[in-house]
Amino acid sequence: MKDLEYMNIAIDMALKGRGWTNPNPMVGAVIVKDDEIISTGYHRKYGDLHAERMAIKNCKKSLQGASLYVTLEPCCHYGLTPPCTEIIVESGIKRVVIGTLDPNPKVASKGVQILRDNGIEVVVGILEKECKDLIKIFSHYIKTKKPYITMKYAMTMDGKIATFTGSSQWITGEIARSEVHKSRHYYSSIMVGVNTVIEDDPMLTSRLDNTKNPIRIICDTNLRTPLASKIVQSSKEVQTIIATCELNSTKHSPYIDMGCEIITVDKYNSHLNILKLVEIIGSLNIDSILLEGGSTLNWSALKSGIVNSVQAYIAPKLFGGVDAKSPIGGLGVEFPNDAIHLTKPTVRFLGDDILLESEVINRCSQEL
Amino acid sequence: MKDLEYMNIAIDMALKGRGWTNPNPMVGAVIVKDDEIISTGYHRKYGDLHAERMAIKNCKKSLQGASLYVTLEPCCHYGLTPPCTEIIVESGIKRVVIGTLDPNPKVASKGVQILRDNGIEVVVGILEKECKDLIKIFSHYIKTKKPYITMKYAMTMDGKIATFTGSSQWITGEIARSEVHKSRHYYSSIMVGVNTVIEDDPMLTSRLDNTKNPIRIICDTNLRTPLASKIVQSSKEVQTIIATCELNSTKHSPYIDMGCEIITVDKYNSHLNILKLVEIIGSLNIDSILLEGGSTLNWSALKSGIVNSVQAYIAPKLFGGVDAKSPIGGLGVEFPNDAIHLTKPTVRFLGDDILLESEVINRCSQEL
Repeated sequence: MKDLEYMNIAIDMALKGRGWTNPNPMVGAVIVKDDEIISTGYHRKYGDLHAERMAIKNCKKSLQGASLYVTLEPCCHYGLTPPCTEIIVESGIKRVVIGTLDPNPKVASKGVQILRDNGIEVVVGILEKECKDLIKIFSHYIKTKKPYITMKYAMTMDGKIATFTGSSQWITGEIARSEVHKSRHYYSSIMVGVNTVIEDDPMLTSRLDNTKNPIRIICDTNLRTPLASKIVQSSKEVQTIIATCELNSTKHSPYIDMGCEIITVDKYNSHLNILKLVEIIGSLNIDSILLEGGSTLNWSALKSGIVNSVQAYIAPKLFGGVDAKSPIGGLGVEFPNDAIHLTKPTVRFLGDDILLESEVINRCSQEL
Repeated sequence: MKDLEYMNIAIDMALKGRGWTNPNPMVGAVIVKDDEIISTGYHRKYGDLHAERMAIKNCKKSLQGASLYVTLEPCCHYGLTPPCTEIIVESGIKRVVIGTLDPNPKVASKGVQILRDNGIEVVVGILEKECKDLIKIFSHYIKTKKPYITMKYAMTMDGKIATFTGSSQWITGEIARSEVHKSRHYYSSIMVGVNTVIEDDPMLTSRLDNTKNPIRIICDTNLRTPLASKIVQSSKEVQTIIATCELNSTKHSPYIDMGCEIITVDKYNSHLNILKLVEIIGSLNIDSILLEGGSTLNWSALKSGIVNSVQAYIAPKLFGGVDAKSPIGGLGVEFPNDAIHLTKPTVRFLGDDILLESEVINRCSQEL
């Protein structure tokens, strides 16, 4: 019982780092002695102290005989910081309660082993599901070297992302839109298609206080992004990547002068090879993408099998219209049995709107 | 506290009549004496005893000094049965607790007044919202003389009711589909467009035990319903109405011979005038329609302003496809501000699927 309670607090601590630690995981730690919390810590941002090290450093009391609760198995290797197992062993802590093991199969359980070899009692798997959720992006990224991709869209209750005239402002209410801005902070990058830039001229930043802006990535096969667009104009302040099949570097120059970075990718079926692009993005230390694509890019991403989860914001209104776009276009699957299956969604109310969140179970393999 | 408890039991009693009482409301009653339930009753089916009369009749003990809990104000007029106020006054019951008043403004409170004039203590409004919900269809029908219409559709999480090939079996899982069969029992009639009959050849019956079949109504502007369709073939067993603009009665004969009824309606914008049809249906003592239309009929109904509520079954899967149909077609609204607004949906999980239920707030007035 007490273990659950303290681990829950460690999870809350971990969440304070959300959006700042990438590509590191969020981790939280709590130190307890004589049934009293004597210190807490969390991984604040990439490059900063690990959670358990921060908790130990912050502690004003003697750690002799204390228990450490930590959401993720302590590291045992030299990275940006020295191994946490070392400082735990030195501290005098006698019991370590771990939420979940290191997701990297090569390292998993090694931290536990070192602690046990040093006479520390170790318990693993308290609130494991919740602790695994905390490191979902991290787990995916270190195993695949590809970013974790969440496809996000807002639609009416009849499945429309715009009216037949293409008008889409607004579908959801303020509370839901503010939640989208929060999500932008949680992901390292945000991806849209060039048509979204041409039609909506968005900023794609997070407008909330105490949030970071994700790196903006534009999929732009033929390099049509307007130089006058808000994104290009602000690309010295907010990192912006344009991915294109246009190889002519003279055409790149004006974008680079404005502050954009250009990634060139080969074509695949007359579109930018999104699978390849995602590999390149992974190699740039970008662990996650919030895909706010239009229906064409959404289908492209889905059929490439790169989408990990879906966020569907649903507004209680109806547009109707055979020509009103729905969230995922392209060719689509031929029969219901070919559908891309998702996990049972979680449901959240955001004002009058609803957010359904699911993970992709079977990837579409039409082109794999 | 006790009042809520007993009224809740009365509501449970009322629900036993669901699907059988139309166009009468569901009503439940509980009689309590010395803090003990001494009888219960409910309106079993159209033409049967009213709930309070059944409870009084069933009671084996003396009613002197007892309390009656009834979800709807007792009637005070002669209809199919004599007024319930009369038997209550005669019974010796000294306190009547009522969920909600009669929805007919001409009659509301009259039953209460008669009871009070006879020295009975009357309390009104216990679990009023829940009791109003019980008579939602009834309230609408007696006020407007038009059926209460619920638009039902099943779609993927990307808003598709079929793949681009038109294939739609199945979108939702078994639990959700069985819930649809339950709904069919709850409504007096079910309406589809002729294209659904041609493409899917459905039976539109409720396949569950102890349920009734709704009257089947086919909207068929040009009388194209196949005589060989399952619906026509079974129209001697299950009441079937074909609504058409075809006036040539020789063309009607083969359908009538098979057991169908034909309703003729004028045209409006090259479609059957659905507003007119709904008025005729109302005049036939049909108080409710479950609209299982395709996307064209759905838009027709919506823009005519006849839809009262929406049931959206959502399956956690994605079809994609620009040519895959979404639930509501037609022209649609021009701008998001013109959307048809719905109430904040209630959410139910049905296996892995989700059912969102909303009421229509502002009707589409494009053509009104």
